[in-house]
Amino acid sequence: MQEIRIGILGFGTVGAGVVEGFQRNGKLIEQRTGIRVTIARIADLDIESDRGVTIDQSLLTTDAQSVINDPEIDVVVELIGGTTIARDLVLSSLKNRKQVVTANKALLAEHGEEIYRTAQSNGVGIYYEAAVGGGIPVLRSQRAGLIGNRIESIYGILNGTCNYILTRMEHEHLPFDDILADAQRLGYAETPPDLDIDGIDTAHKAVILASMAYGAPVPMGACTIHGIRGLSNQEIVNAEGLDYRIKLLAIIREIDGQVEISVEPTLIPKEHMIASVSDSFNAVFVRGDIVDDTMYYGRGAGSLPTGSAVIGDILEAGSDRLNGSGVPVSVTMMLQKDTLQYLPSEKIIKRYYLRLSLFDQPGSLAQVMKVMGNHQISMASVVQNERFKGGYAPVIMLTHKAREADLKAAIEEIRELEVSGAEPVALRIEDFE
Amino acid sequence: MQEIRIGILGFGTVGAGVVEGFQRNGKLIEQRTGIRVTIARIADLDIESDRGVTIDQSLLTTDAQSVINDPEIDVVVELIGGTTIARDLVLSSLKNRKQVVTANKALLAEHGEEIYRTAQSNGVGIYYEAAVGGGIPVLRSQRAGLIGNRIESIYGILNGTCNYILTRMEHEHLPFDDILADAQRLGYAETPPDLDIDGIDTAHKAVILASMAYGAPVPMGACTIHGIRGLSNQEIVNAEGLDYRIKLLAIIREIDGQVEISVEPTLIPKEHMIASVSDSFNAVFVRGDIVDDTMYYGRGAGSLPTGSAVIGDILEAGSDRLNGSGVPVSVTMMLQKDTLQYLPSEKIIKRYYLRLSLFDQPGSLAQVMKVMGNHQISMASVVQNERFKGGYAPVIMLTHKAREADLKAAIEEIRELEVSGAEPVALRIEDFE
Repeated sequence: MQEIRIGILGFGTVGAGVVEGFQRNGKLIEQRTGIRVTIARIADLDIESDRGVTIDQSLLTTDAQSVINDPEIDVVVELIGGTTIARDLVLSSLKNRKQVVTANKALLAEHGEEIYRTAQSNGVGIYYEAAVGGGIPVLRSQRAGLIGNRIESIYGILNGTCNYILTRMEHEHLPFDDILADAQRLGYAETPPDLDIDGIDTAHKAVILASMAYGAPVPMGACTIHGIRGLSNQEIVNAEGLDYRIKLLAIIREIDGQVEISVEPTLIPKEHMIASVSDSFNAVFVRGDIVDDTMYYGRGAGSLPTGSAVIGDILEAGSDRLNGSGVPVSVTMMLQKDTLQYLPSEKIIKRYYLRLSLFDQPGSLAQVMKVMGNHQISMASVVQNERFKGGYAPVIMLTHKAREADLKAAIEEIRELEVSGAEPVALRIEDFE
Repeated sequence: MQEIRIGILGFGTVGAGVVEGFQRNGKLIEQRTGIRVTIARIADLDIESDRGVTIDQSLLTTDAQSVINDPEIDVVVELIGGTTIARDLVLSSLKNRKQVVTANKALLAEHGEEIYRTAQSNGVGIYYEAAVGGGIPVLRSQRAGLIGNRIESIYGILNGTCNYILTRMEHEHLPFDDILADAQRLGYAETPPDLDIDGIDTAHKAVILASMAYGAPVPMGACTIHGIRGLSNQEIVNAEGLDYRIKLLAIIREIDGQVEISVEPTLIPKEHMIASVSDSFNAVFVRGDIVDDTMYYGRGAGSLPTGSAVIGDILEAGSDRLNGSGVPVSVTMMLQKDTLQYLPSEKIIKRYYLRLSLFDQPGSLAQVMKVMGNHQISMASVVQNERFKGGYAPVIMLTHKAREADLKAAIEEIRELEVSGAEPVALRIEDFE
């Protein structure tokens, strides 16, 4: 039996999940792999609170530095979160030639390049499956099973809180704010909820996926981000009537050598697999040039699911250490190039759902259609509904493919038309072509 | 740049896919992994036919033995298929201490134990991602990402031909035989189609999944197999009316230390993710005790998708060879125990869809219900449809959970009732609880 000794930094929700996972299945892991994982140290500022798992108190320390300096520890597991202390500790661990496992998406999205380069120059590895899609082995699939593929596109539902809110809006036809408040009460959404509902968390994960797919560290600034805050229930209902569902979708793809990375509420055809992903589940749809379409689905967060991914990484990191394998693919894949070419958001070509409010008089729609035509935007369908009180009627349009810059210019003009009522709403439609 | 040299045995559809994959993306793979893969030899009895890929003719040989004896070759890739020559060549390769990659599910299902033990005793690896789910990295997910999980259950749509036929029956409402004939004409089904439609191919894959999940070589005899041959269009239509879809489903699960492995046409609730898997796609739904529900979806067959999985394995096998990693988890996981305890099929507890044909007279249904009650089978719903000509009416029943032995006994008795018309039909219902 071979042994690897790990030190855990941060004994919060995920830390407790990792400990519980090893307590439940440590023997099974040994039988399967021939490797015994020993939790040698756990560092946290709070070593008093009950985490719901029983551990030997002598493993606990408030001194993280003592863990990363311990020559007996092979693998450091960073579960502190955030981008300040976590960054220092991860970099120090790598410089101490520890293998490092982390679940910290913000850290990798914001300081990935520095971290990957530090790992490379010290001949060690960093493993971060839990940072994207929680328990779903999606990064591992990309860097192992699909290693022979040029990645054409990735579509991800990567934030469980947003997907939970959207699913409930769809089922209950209640306004965003009501569902958000209830989600906070039930612990499905944090307070403040900004990182989730403004799309930042999804963007962190999108940036990591894009780095792996296209082989260079991707800065957060390369990602166009629109969250779901304030999404009207009307859009959910209208989408449903058109056989679509609205999801907060990360889209990563390469078009003629330029990479698009965007996060926005998107209409998805109901019959598409990814439209069936409901509640707090996550899914990542990956299209490779050899393998064609694949999808990976599961729990994107939570103590045990995230712990499952961390445990998988610990075994890989430990096994690489035992084999003396050197810098792993999880590092080399991110550093193939220094930088990528990005597709400017105004050049992105996509289909749109539009909801306009037009004064119900002869010629209103004709004026709008003329503006659209002037901007080379053609319509796939137009539905004018019964008018509301006050004489305005909602008009729902689905466009054919159009350039974002053209659509923005058209909306500017439509907003200025005298027949225009409430602010126009535009959402992306994705057909997965 | 490190190099691995491979020899391919069998230059058919998948062999050509592997060659094409390396031709397209070999440079990209080098950048990502730092490993150059050189195809050193390709053996096939036919070295004349055009495979649609351009290769150096001097690589071709009709002498497979020369490939596995070549000391310069690190990895042997077996893509011959079948269980006779392929078995000999795989065993000889392992004894020659080659790493072996194979896509051969029949071989592993029927001779897995001998092959895993030969790999182990020679200190080498066998890698077989392509044997289950084609291009989907599902075995790798089980043995890496989910390594910390006790597997509670696996549900798989593992045969693209059957799923294609069932999807078309559902969309077109045409009889099984017509769709099968058309699928054969279009190349979606082989002639003869037996291995696919009788469930044998699905069972081969189920046995490999079960071996990995529960840690011992599983004989084919442990799997209960019912194919889709002769499935009536009526069942498809009735299921649809009840908000179910019928899929050929492999079910693998452990119940109180006993493993159930079965393959049968199964009613699946329409809203479940796996019910959305249509056409020739495959999917595997894996529930772990730590990670909860996960699902893996993609193309289960085809030259390039299967080639994608083989390429992933070649890189792993080569990397293990370069690192001197010894016997990999893909071998050790299969040999944790000598044997498993299996749940006898008559003890399996499941829900049933039943279609009976009863003579439409007062008391017919009462007689049937009495028989059901006598065998401890209770009903979730009963619908009697309009009677046909001749006085018989179809009755559709959905049962609560019942033991298979009880249901069989009840059907025996119902068949003997004077009011019984055409042969009763019973299908499994799976609620994924």
